[in-house]
Amino acid sequence: MAKQKPSVPKGTRDFGPEQMAKRTYILDTIKSVYKKYGFQNLETPTMENLSVLTGKYGDEGDQLLFKVVNSGDYLKKVTAKDLEEGAKHMLPKISEKGLRYDLTVPFARYVVMNQGTLSFPFKRYQVQPVWRADRPQRGRYREFYQCDADVVGTDSLLCEAEILAMMGEALTDLKITDHTIKLNNRKVLTGIAEAIGENGKESELCVAIDKLDKIGVEKVNEELIQQRGFSQDAVDKLSPIFSISGSTEDRIAAMKNMLATSEVGLKGLSELEEVFAFTAKMGVATDKVEFDVTLARGLSYYTGAIFEVKVNNANMGSISGGGRYDNLTGVFGLEGMSGVGFSFGVDRIYDVLEELDLYPKSAMETTKVMLTNFDDAGRDYSLPLLQKLRMAGVSAELYPDTAKMKKQMNFANKKGIAYVVLAWEDEISQGKYSLKNMLTGEQQLLSADEIVGLLK
Amino acid sequence: MAKQKPSVPKGTRDFGPEQMAKRTYILDTIKSVYKKYGFQNLETPTMENLSVLTGKYGDEGDQLLFKVVNSGDYLKKVTAKDLEEGAKHMLPKISEKGLRYDLTVPFARYVVMNQGTLSFPFKRYQVQPVWRADRPQRGRYREFYQCDADVVGTDSLLCEAEILAMMGEALTDLKITDHTIKLNNRKVLTGIAEAIGENGKESELCVAIDKLDKIGVEKVNEELIQQRGFSQDAVDKLSPIFSISGSTEDRIAAMKNMLATSEVGLKGLSELEEVFAFTAKMGVATDKVEFDVTLARGLSYYTGAIFEVKVNNANMGSISGGGRYDNLTGVFGLEGMSGVGFSFGVDRIYDVLEELDLYPKSAMETTKVMLTNFDDAGRDYSLPLLQKLRMAGVSAELYPDTAKMKKQMNFANKKGIAYVVLAWEDEISQGKYSLKNMLTGEQQLLSADEIVGLLK
Repeated sequence: MAKQKPSVPKGTRDFGPEQMAKRTYILDTIKSVYKKYGFQNLETPTMENLSVLTGKYGDEGDQLLFKVVNSGDYLKKVTAKDLEEGAKHMLPKISEKGLRYDLTVPFARYVVMNQGTLSFPFKRYQVQPVWRADRPQRGRYREFYQCDADVVGTDSLLCEAEILAMMGEALTDLKITDHTIKLNNRKVLTGIAEAIGENGKESELCVAIDKLDKIGVEKVNEELIQQRGFSQDAVDKLSPIFSISGSTEDRIAAMKNMLATSEVGLKGLSELEEVFAFTAKMGVATDKVEFDVTLARGLSYYTGAIFEVKVNNANMGSISGGGRYDNLTGVFGLEGMSGVGFSFGVDRIYDVLEELDLYPKSAMETTKVMLTNFDDAGRDYSLPLLQKLRMAGVSAELYPDTAKMKKQMNFANKKGIAYVVLAWEDEISQGKYSLKNMLTGEQQLLSADEIVGLLK
Repeated sequence: MAKQKPSVPKGTRDFGPEQMAKRTYILDTIKSVYKKYGFQNLETPTMENLSVLTGKYGDEGDQLLFKVVNSGDYLKKVTAKDLEEGAKHMLPKISEKGLRYDLTVPFARYVVMNQGTLSFPFKRYQVQPVWRADRPQRGRYREFYQCDADVVGTDSLLCEAEILAMMGEALTDLKITDHTIKLNNRKVLTGIAEAIGENGKESELCVAIDKLDKIGVEKVNEELIQQRGFSQDAVDKLSPIFSISGSTEDRIAAMKNMLATSEVGLKGLSELEEVFAFTAKMGVATDKVEFDVTLARGLSYYTGAIFEVKVNNANMGSISGGGRYDNLTGVFGLEGMSGVGFSFGVDRIYDVLEELDLYPKSAMETTKVMLTNFDDAGRDYSLPLLQKLRMAGVSAELYPDTAKMKKQMNFANKKGIAYVVLAWEDEISQGKYSLKNMLTGEQQLLSADEIVGLLK
């Protein structure tokens, strides 16, 4: 076979030991919070039937699905005429499966398929990769992990309060202390559309407002008038929302004023108040939670709360988001299943921790101690200690080949090994070992049991 | 959109909370052993370029690769003539990527792409799903996890000894105590081919011997003569290997006798002796390790040790296997990289633990305590305790809706929750809570701090 220079598909990545250690630290931290709040783990298959995926993510989403060629003679249903009709026409005849695009649709499918045996409210978390045939660019990949937690089968606003608590706790555990959790409610946005005389146009309003951070108030207004058919009067009436400030109570009071005539708007505000009442009763700090009436997240399927998290001292977009949806499973035939959920962006959190230098040393630990191998006598003398360390739960390895001191020390350094054990004639004759701390360079002459006791 | 009855692709599975808890227990147990022996985690992309995958698994393997349709206009390189030439001819024009078929080839690719920065010997473990378009049947899936550990860049037989130690430790940790680790060496099989006068035919010999467990000695001999061109004399000379028994020393001695004239055969036996010498020096018990001269594993790329694990008291094939290969990365242009590795079969171990009822209760723990919700007063009274429990690290949830006692108790039972907290008027008036042990039914009246202390 010809030798080839291998590569990975564009937009995909290998995660080597250091990256895996960091990613595992992030995921373990988040998962442990999910579990503490009663969420249970779910995994769904990488491939889903295209009938499950198609039509759930809009036309653009359908384009971005990775499709899998049918097994066996995938052309058996294809005629020359199909080929003439083109790629889009022919695709369903050669492909019935696609790669998971997100974790929400597979979750909905799972709930519907297992509705008879699941206990509701069902709290599930799911941490798996998803695939999108997006144009790869800096920070955007074709394979990336999502990290979702959702509750379905209840409309209790306690769930929203718990999500605020979980977001705060996970970020605190990750030492991302300078963050803001933004909270809004879709009903408030609906109310605003009513209050400015543009009933039913909250979707258009959301899409425009969603760009506020990027393009500013002027351009948002311009877009509303020129592209989305809003009146000048409506845009004028909208303007107060961009200058709302003060405490949560102040903001809610101001909005109550603006939405006085909108029943749905007032309902949204009272839901917000109830969420904050729950956090207060639970004793969850909300000093980092901000009611942001301009938070829209452009997603038309949210029907209640909308969440988003920003890190204030890092150069990064939102690292988490979510909201309440009233009909997650309707598309698969199960109506009235209200749910609320959110997701952490693992790749973005990875970069934030990198930028702010927040990875703890313990997360980066590899093998704790390496036993050197200078000759057969030293090696054989060290082998019982090697296994003693492991039996005591200490991660240990012996350099498998006889090699020079420098080579072995370089190896230990590069692998991030904290301690090295040396056994020359001198140590052997005393029935001891030299234990070298690779960070301080300090070296101690110790017995096997002393070393095990020290490293355990 | 029309309502649809959703399903998963054949040969794939959802893993719900209980299955995930069991699988996580298995994988965490295995990973923790891997880490203790100095192995580091690697993850590679789900999709690989077909140029990396094709030709590595034989013709049958190439057929079983799941191929991904190119993004965008995947037909742009296809003509009517291509269609006429058929599926196999057209495939490379519409698909450049496939799903990972195993973890070995991606590992080899990774090593070659990162040879400049990796420190050798490189010990990596990798736990990820793989995909094969096999005909689904009982116990065989199209998506399943592999769980590999390999060392590359050394030919030290210490690695073989460590693999025996790791296999034994992982199985002991999983409480699979009645197991046999079979060990052989490819060079011994080569030596046997020489000794019976069928030089160079050890591959054919391996393929036939590999079926010994399934078809018996008679059929193996028949196959060797009728299908693989072995002489009657060769088969006669082979017969002693089927009756070898006794201690490892006895077996090696018997084989030394048989292979007295085969240099490579004797080399294989001395490698085996060296491996056992290492385990003895390390203090690793080998009472469950058996030198089995008929172990072949049909894989032509093994060049030294061959491993396989069977559970003696369960109805299951091998649950682990591996071996040494001398040229893992040669196909990608990096020669002389010797390695040795093995893998645990997660699905099979799952079934064994199920059959032998070996899952520990702790692995199945979900939420530790549920707080009930009978009315707003009781709920509000319980909310501070809820968060106090979580802050103490106790997994806790409050039933989010007001509901009847029976419904909430059923929910807790079904979710496997160990304790339930009740707060009626009576408890509230005393500033206490009733804590019910769901297993024993026992109920205690306790303060919030007492409950936290008890469950922590």
